[in-house]
Amino acid sequence: MVGVVGGGQLARMMQPSAVALGVRLRVLAESAQDSAAQVVADCEVGHHGDLAALRRFAAGCDVVTFDHEHVPTAHLSALVDDGAVIRPGPDALVFAQDKGRMRERLAKEGAPVPRWAPVAAADDVAAFADAGDGWPVVLKATRGGYDGKGVWPVDDLDEADWVLSHDQVPGFLVEERVRFTRELAAVVARSPSGQAVAYPVVETVQIDGICREVYAPAQIAATHSVAAQRVALDLAGRLGVVGVLAVELFDTPEGVLVNELAMRPHNSGHWTIDGAVTSQFENHLRAVLDLPLGDPSATAPHAAMVNVLGGDLPDLYPAYLHCMARDPGLKVHMYGKSVRPGRKIGHVTVVGDDPGQLKDRARHAAAYLRGDIDE
Amino acid sequence: MVGVVGGGQLARMMQPSAVALGVRLRVLAESAQDSAAQVVADCEVGHHGDLAALRRFAAGCDVVTFDHEHVPTAHLSALVDDGAVIRPGPDALVFAQDKGRMRERLAKEGAPVPRWAPVAAADDVAAFADAGDGWPVVLKATRGGYDGKGVWPVDDLDEADWVLSHDQVPGFLVEERVRFTRELAAVVARSPSGQAVAYPVVETVQIDGICREVYAPAQIAATHSVAAQRVALDLAGRLGVVGVLAVELFDTPEGVLVNELAMRPHNSGHWTIDGAVTSQFENHLRAVLDLPLGDPSATAPHAAMVNVLGGDLPDLYPAYLHCMARDPGLKVHMYGKSVRPGRKIGHVTVVGDDPGQLKDRARHAAAYLRGDIDE
Repeated sequence: MVGVVGGGQLARMMQPSAVALGVRLRVLAESAQDSAAQVVADCEVGHHGDLAALRRFAAGCDVVTFDHEHVPTAHLSALVDDGAVIRPGPDALVFAQDKGRMRERLAKEGAPVPRWAPVAAADDVAAFADAGDGWPVVLKATRGGYDGKGVWPVDDLDEADWVLSHDQVPGFLVEERVRFTRELAAVVARSPSGQAVAYPVVETVQIDGICREVYAPAQIAATHSVAAQRVALDLAGRLGVVGVLAVELFDTPEGVLVNELAMRPHNSGHWTIDGAVTSQFENHLRAVLDLPLGDPSATAPHAAMVNVLGGDLPDLYPAYLHCMARDPGLKVHMYGKSVRPGRKIGHVTVVGDDPGQLKDRARHAAAYLRGDIDE
Repeated sequence: MVGVVGGGQLARMMQPSAVALGVRLRVLAESAQDSAAQVVADCEVGHHGDLAALRRFAAGCDVVTFDHEHVPTAHLSALVDDGAVIRPGPDALVFAQDKGRMRERLAKEGAPVPRWAPVAAADDVAAFADAGDGWPVVLKATRGGYDGKGVWPVDDLDEADWVLSHDQVPGFLVEERVRFTRELAAVVARSPSGQAVAYPVVETVQIDGICREVYAPAQIAATHSVAAQRVALDLAGRLGVVGVLAVELFDTPEGVLVNELAMRPHNSGHWTIDGAVTSQFENHLRAVLDLPLGDPSATAPHAAMVNVLGGDLPDLYPAYLHCMARDPGLKVHMYGKSVRPGRKIGHVTVVGDDPGQLKDRARHAAAYLRGDIDE
């Protein structure tokens, strides 16, 4: 029995792999209507911040893993002390939870990172800007951010002051604004015994901090994609990650820089469901169960994945009719989530030979499913 | 909400496609421990022969489909009279339920079938043998057979007499023993609006009437594979099938002959999960929901699927370690079923370029998972 804390789409997309492998999933969801709760037989309703709920949940599981990074580190340590098997463990997961800890550790490991500093006051931000390339810089909350939340580009001292006045945020850091040519993601999976596999490096397109499109493989120099895979494999080993580690990177003319880490299946790996021999979800399950990992190779020369964000369509059936009739090769993935503007409610993937054509097909379907276009 | 009557592995394997499409499945299973019941959030326990249970079940579903063919035709007609949407409908399904009705109808449609006759007594069988190529012939129960049950090759009058003494069997037919070169299956899907797609024709290897191995595509003359697809598409249309229709055929030097029909996803189509753009399970769901059908093309030149039958292994984890470490490209599918000798408890699939190598890999893994070999 694999327990997944969190009932979002990542837990949901573990279910098809669990069905195939004959692995039972149990989900701790905030509501029985959550994306993953709809598709597993065994769902417990409870909050990931409630230690008693976590303890009850973990007691029935052989191993516990995650849909998100929001479980307090102290709670995870308490579960470990209880004897629960937590993968990735709290000592590794903290580097995906706390960007300050992550930046410190990566600097210590010699990983390529943007220039950064912890900050408490606007003057610290100004000093950081003055010592480097000046404004703009990027402020980040050390904890709790996702999908662009908790990240603020700031142009001057006043903006920095306004951001730092967010009093629910436990800590901030500042980073140089990296002039990147594109954003990349390197997804790897690592088992407790140390076996690791690396998926092809992908290009990601973010808008307002939300991943919108992923193209596999990234069309970049081999030296950069090898460097990105090396960084991800190296960090997975050094941090002791178990399961999927996704490393988001900036590609620059001088090389790649690590932007963020996630220790769970990641949006940049959704294309692997339809485009790789073994999906990131299957390899995450294999890793947390300490089973040998599956082949991460792509099954076609190119894949394109575009997220479907919440839009104006209350009923998707007519949109399905159009998209499926127009493109029989389209792979549609919907998360069973209620529609809120800007919320990720699904994604589409197409695989094939011609990257430009794949991009057009995936973008068209995602726009149609969102209700942005009707032709 | 799609309701599936029956909680076996076919219903189970619909769940990953349902998860992706955002379709909710409800399963009517005989027990909450059934293969499919383990992996859906919405399971009703009840028997497919109990009309009241069927009525309760159907009332909550937009459309009802099947994991097996065992629901009495009269019950299905009653559900239709209630206003339920049953796909495939009882008028089509009867030809997969009743081999006598199937043979009559196929003969009327001019489909290529073995020589056959309905029989009631051993003398009828002897007369049939005398009028043709003599003994042996094949006796079949008209209803209730599966996986080799309900089929008896008989060598003489005494054996025929013994078989016909099975007094629970509602009816018998006799067929010539076809001297086939190989067995084939043609899997197609058809929607209520009449759209249909055909998967590549496969070769199936049966032992004791149980499908053991499937190779896609069948390595046969194009004229025979086109003929098999034509027969399947033609019958799907003429019989008004909705969903997947699997036509099992004998390949002979003179052409193909229809052996059996199944109107649901079929063992001969399991390879499509890992080897086709759209699996038979996804196309079955699309068809019963009257959504446009997905591309049935293979994603690689060859695929090999071998069933895992119940063997001696009480705990599969060590076998998983071996098989997955030995072959990272292996796709394992286990059905969560308790092990009984000879019972289908899972299957493995590999896809690639070299059919001989794929056969060896799939056979090795299936034998290891069964416990037949330990090296």
